[in-house]
Amino acid sequence: MHAVVVHAAKDLRVEEREPPPLGPHEVRVRLGAGGICGSDLHYYHEGGIGDFPIREPLVLGHEMAGTVVELGPAVEGLAPGTKVAVNPTWPCPGVRFDLGARAHLDPQIRFAGSSRTFPHVQGFFQELVTVRAEQCRPVPAALPVEEAAMAEPLACCLHAIRRAREVLGRHVLVLGCGPIGCLTIAAARLAGAGRITACDLVPATLAKAKAMGADEVIDLSADRAPLDRLKKGGGTVDVVVEAAGSPKAAVDGLEATRRGGTYVQFGVLPRGMHPIPFDQIVAKELDMIGTFRFWEEFDWAVEAIAARRLDVRPLLTEVLPLSRAKEAFELASDRRRAMKVQLVPG
Amino acid sequence: MHAVVVHAAKDLRVEEREPPPLGPHEVRVRLGAGGICGSDLHYYHEGGIGDFPIREPLVLGHEMAGTVVELGPAVEGLAPGTKVAVNPTWPCPGVRFDLGARAHLDPQIRFAGSSRTFPHVQGFFQELVTVRAEQCRPVPAALPVEEAAMAEPLACCLHAIRRAREVLGRHVLVLGCGPIGCLTIAAARLAGAGRITACDLVPATLAKAKAMGADEVIDLSADRAPLDRLKKGGGTVDVVVEAAGSPKAAVDGLEATRRGGTYVQFGVLPRGMHPIPFDQIVAKELDMIGTFRFWEEFDWAVEAIAARRLDVRPLLTEVLPLSRAKEAFELASDRRRAMKVQLVPG
Amino acid sequence: MHAVVVHAAKDLRVEEREPPPLGPHEVRVRLGAGGICGSDLHYYHEGGIGDFPIREPLVLGHEMAGTVVELGPAVEGLAPGTKVAVNPTWPCPGVRFDLGARAHLDPQIRFAGSSRTFPHVQGFFQELVTVRAEQCRPVPAALPVEEAAMAEPLACCLHAIRRAREVLGRHVLVLGCGPIGCLTIAAARLAGAGRITACDLVPATLAKAKAMGADEVIDLSADRAPLDRLKKGGGTVDVVVEAAGSPKAAVDGLEATRRGGTYVQFGVLPRGMHPIPFDQIVAKELDMIGTFRFWEEFDWAVEAIAARRLDVRPLLTEVLPLSRAKEAFELASDRRRAMKVQLVPG
Amino acid sequence: MHAVVVHAAKDLRVEEREPPPLGPHEVRVRLGAGGICGSDLHYYHEGGIGDFPIREPLVLGHEMAGTVVELGPAVEGLAPGTKVAVNPTWPCPGVRFDLGARAHLDPQIRFAGSSRTFPHVQGFFQELVTVRAEQCRPVPAALPVEEAAMAEPLACCLHAIRRAREVLGRHVLVLGCGPIGCLTIAAARLAGAGRITACDLVPATLAKAKAMGADEVIDLSADRAPLDRLKKGGGTVDVVVEAAGSPKAAVDGLEATRRGGTYVQFGVLPRGMHPIPFDQIVAKELDMIGTFRFWEEFDWAVEAIAARRLDVRPLLTEVLPLSRAKEAFELASDRRRAMKVQLVPG
Repeated sequence: MHAVVVHAAKDLRVEEREPPPLGPHEVRVRLGAGGICGSDLHYYHEGGIGDFPIREPLVLGHEMAGTVVELGPAVEGLAPGTKVAVNPTWPCPGVRFDLGARAHLDPQIRFAGSSRTFPHVQGFFQELVTVRAEQCRPVPAALPVEEAAMAEPLACCLHAIRRAREVLGRHVLVLGCGPIGCLTIAAARLAGAGRITACDLVPATLAKAKAMGADEVIDLSADRAPLDRLKKGGGTVDVVVEAAGSPKAAVDGLEATRRGGTYVQFGVLPRGMHPIPFDQIVAKELDMIGTFRFWEEFDWAVEAIAARRLDVRPLLTEVLPLSRAKEAFELASDRRRAMKVQLVPG
Repeated sequence: MHAVVVHAAKDLRVEEREPPPLGPHEVRVRLGAGGICGSDLHYYHEGGIGDFPIREPLVLGHEMAGTVVELGPAVEGLAPGTKVAVNPTWPCPGVRFDLGARAHLDPQIRFAGSSRTFPHVQGFFQELVTVRAEQCRPVPAALPVEEAAMAEPLACCLHAIRRAREVLGRHVLVLGCGPIGCLTIAAARLAGAGRITACDLVPATLAKAKAMGADEVIDLSADRAPLDRLKKGGGTVDVVVEAAGSPKAAVDGLEATRRGGTYVQFGVLPRGMHPIPFDQIVAKELDMIGTFRFWEEFDWAVEAIAARRLDVRPLLTEVLPLSRAKEAFELASDRRRAMKVQLVPG
Repeated sequence: MHAVVVHAAKDLRVEEREPPPLGPHEVRVRLGAGGICGSDLHYYHEGGIGDFPIREPLVLGHEMAGTVVELGPAVEGLAPGTKVAVNPTWPCPGVRFDLGARAHLDPQIRFAGSSRTFPHVQGFFQELVTVRAEQCRPVPAALPVEEAAMAEPLACCLHAIRRAREVLGRHVLVLGCGPIGCLTIAAARLAGAGRITACDLVPATLAKAKAMGADEVIDLSADRAPLDRLKKGGGTVDVVVEAAGSPKAAVDGLEATRRGGTYVQFGVLPRGMHPIPFDQIVAKELDMIGTFRFWEEFDWAVEAIAARRLDVRPLLTEVLPLSRAKEAFELASDRRRAMKVQLVPG
Repeated sequence: MHAVVVHAAKDLRVEEREPPPLGPHEVRVRLGAGGICGSDLHYYHEGGIGDFPIREPLVLGHEMAGTVVELGPAVEGLAPGTKVAVNPTWPCPGVRFDLGARAHLDPQIRFAGSSRTFPHVQGFFQELVTVRAEQCRPVPAALPVEEAAMAEPLACCLHAIRRAREVLGRHVLVLGCGPIGCLTIAAARLAGAGRITACDLVPATLAKAKAMGADEVIDLSADRAPLDRLKKGGGTVDVVVEAAGSPKAAVDGLEATRRGGTYVQFGVLPRGMHPIPFDQIVAKELDMIGTFRFWEEFDWAVEAIAARRLDVRPLLTEVLPLSRAKEAFELASDRRRAMKVQLVPG
């Protein structure tokens, strides 16, 4: 079967692989659609992510939905033919999702398509994916797999919004309107935000931001004045989410946050140190909050998408077969041409 | 002008009153619509509420929207003809709403149409209402006043949902589907709840609950089994809101809350003590949370209604003129005949 | 070896038992001292606790410290001769204590000397206890085992105080000055409480409350007026902890809690329902919080006792050999004669 | 009377001033002792603080205790001769401290000896201070004024610790052992911290850190290895408080904070931007928390000092008369020679 494997920076290959043997508690899921994420692009362009270079060939991909085709002998409660969204992470035996843990912060937690642990956990960009049964969340048969595959990035965004603690009724500013920024807008709307403002330097993204629920958008390539107005009097915004991964956006965001407000750092900045205005944090008594992946929010995301409580379709802009993975990665790297690019079999 | 005045239990009169002189920071608002709330019914039926009997004739009403008709000389930023929702409470001079205070818990806080302070603050069921300019929140001219008048009860419900702390993605059970229960459903939906279940003994209310966003409803007059299933294994619901004001519902709710979950007591129970299963609170380590009125949530409610982020129209079932106030109060007291009853001029 | 086994209500026997085989990850700990807890007394007097009658003979005891005498072959980091406090509960494999979980709420969690799971987990009142190595927390060799054995009840109290969320600087009222009430006073003091007030009906306990850190004590057998003063104006106390397990104390506590304050239900009330004033919860917008056992707080308790950041010695009033267990249980049941009764070998 | 007035950077004068007329709700307090704070030093060395240069001559000082000598005619509940700690800030009329507000974040809040509002609020370094009666908190007559004058900086530290949210039982690292760092250590101890580690570059401060409750100290001028060990595996410390105002300490602190931990920025860094490792915040999902002044914590500080629940005496190293203010300011600027320098009359 086809698998999309990164060997080194810019060395992305479509290879033939055999699926591993099926364990008693595992299932095989045929790929329906698999989304390319910003972290996949880091592997592609840099051969690793942050402090974690790849140490062996790695099948990429951790956003995926498909159809169950084979069950290990001990699997209960799943039938072949079931359409599922697949969670790229899973609890240690015995950790129940509903007990408030933050097990996603465990450095030993396993996550598909990631080089953070070794041996690496192979990812989802392959025609048949072998996963633990508990990673599979059934979705309605009528739900397109492309939508179901958005559960993973949406889970990250729901987690980011949850980390902001108080969003209901608040003015939320989202900096950066790529797929993550746009899903954060949708997640903030879902969570009852009041006014939502969104900024980006690429005008095409702003239409998507509006489609996902932003009340007003600021085209920073044309005019920074509306953003500067949000900084008046020491900042006016209740909750700022930096989803651009840009040092400049981070400074903008800290300056726009009101006294006593919350700034969430969601975007991954270029490696190294970047300057911030510390006085903003101290004199305004900010909460500057990091957010990383998700935990129980995966189930929330599946449920919200399945019930169309939010509509991810405006973000689904491109679909390519696995065999054209390199082209798909290049396309996903160009914010002017594509929003979410997904891979499908073939 | 007409005013609806309670003198004692069951002694509700429509009287002619002169508006008080207009202070420099005050405005006069012509009544557009004023909703009858459960606490108004307590005054009507019992001549007081809880430990606060009326001590002088009291104009009832604290849910109201209308049109500004006259401005005190020091008022800025409001023009005659502006349609406004009117907040029945207001901050002490200098208390800013955005500083996280819970000033609504101050026993000296003033609240329209309430006997909790003395002299009582006269309420909104009169043709011309004289209030501080800062109590007025402009709404779009196109928004029907009946919808705008729902800002106050919605503010209470947003506060209740906020008091629940974690609603995003959670299973919420609302016990009682009167106007407050139904608005709580809408508020939970707005705040990103996962599944919402609603119960009532009056089947007619359940259709409204569904219209306001409940995913499933339980008709307790027909079959308690679905509720009992929610209590399995020590309880399964993440967040329970008791909005019925019923001792039995409170016990049901505590039993249905899962380990580590949250139970919100929103309904006002009959005076006196009522039994609860303490072991549910201890062994399941519950948070049993009281909720009382609102503070900054009034602005959130106005904004949500003005933007139709939630739709209160299914609840607006009856409109009567002030002159038929007594009939309106009787109607509002009958859950089988009416949901939200509002008074209008005439 | 001697073991203290409950067979039914009032049927407590000292039996000879053989230690079970030692698993590879287990250790054997020789009993130093084991404290009798209120829940042990429930088993003794009622043959069970709450909804969990004993279904097989059960060695009681879950508060214990002693000396490691034998190690399973896979145990690392512990040496024979080490003095340890023993945690009666332990995480599922892979659940790390520092990840914020509330795994103690899992109905399947195992806990020594408890009938909540079946087969029951045998307890610590035996000369040699066989436990998992990770249950053992080394303490300084110079620390008396009697003090180390207080880690478990202190962990419960630290958890209760943590559940109260905001204790620093606050006025705390503790209702009930048995061992748990007194340790709660010490835990509140440790956590930076402002004024601490304590009440009991048994005057002898109040001296202990003072020794553990109460600033003022109220002898309810003599004069309820000081408690009534705390209820003035709707209640004045920031944080109330009910540690008496008394329906009357619960009502007192709810009435004494100030608007916006926190009431913690720590005591286990007699089975059945008990009445509360719901209006106190609603109109004062209280947080009524349940607390159950502990999780990571066991380590905090060991550290605090080992460093003598709090001094548990005033509570250590009686020590008896295992062979006199029945007498010890009777003594522990009489609040006028004993505070904490501990069992030692012999 | 003598007053210590800053006119510009390095232009500090001891002048003769007349006390202002006494308002009906005001009292006059004779200076007992007034501590020199880091922000006083900013005014002295830079002629302002942060973005707030002085715009008119400013009497410095906001840490003060003394004796009431004269009462305005409307003052109740205070008598001449009462020893008091004086709060440099005060609520707007009607804002009650116990309602959870964060009114200290209001840009219009008034604060003694500060240029943040204009006209500036004159400070406490004068022989007679005229303040509102509600700013005065009586302390026991036997308490030395020097200790009472520490209530203000302690209030800041209690607020910082409260902002950290979870300190009970936690490992706390305090970076910087000046007066604020040392009081933060004491505040963390008061709040029930587990292990407390403290670092500084000036060895003399570390003895004070130990005296105030640190369990272990790291002399960074001699050996950074112990600090590096705290950074192992991505960081090990639950709660880090940066109290040095140093960009390097901030980076150290972020690196030492464990996954899911809390970093509190308390120190005021040099003006401008300073680089931080964003990946620490994101991948470890940190809470980076600002803290600014205090609100209700002033009362807690007075109570804790009055009851000697913590002992501030090790920090009281130098006392000079007002007439030698300039010498006192130079002394306070030299971390090698002085910890807390206080001014007294004369």
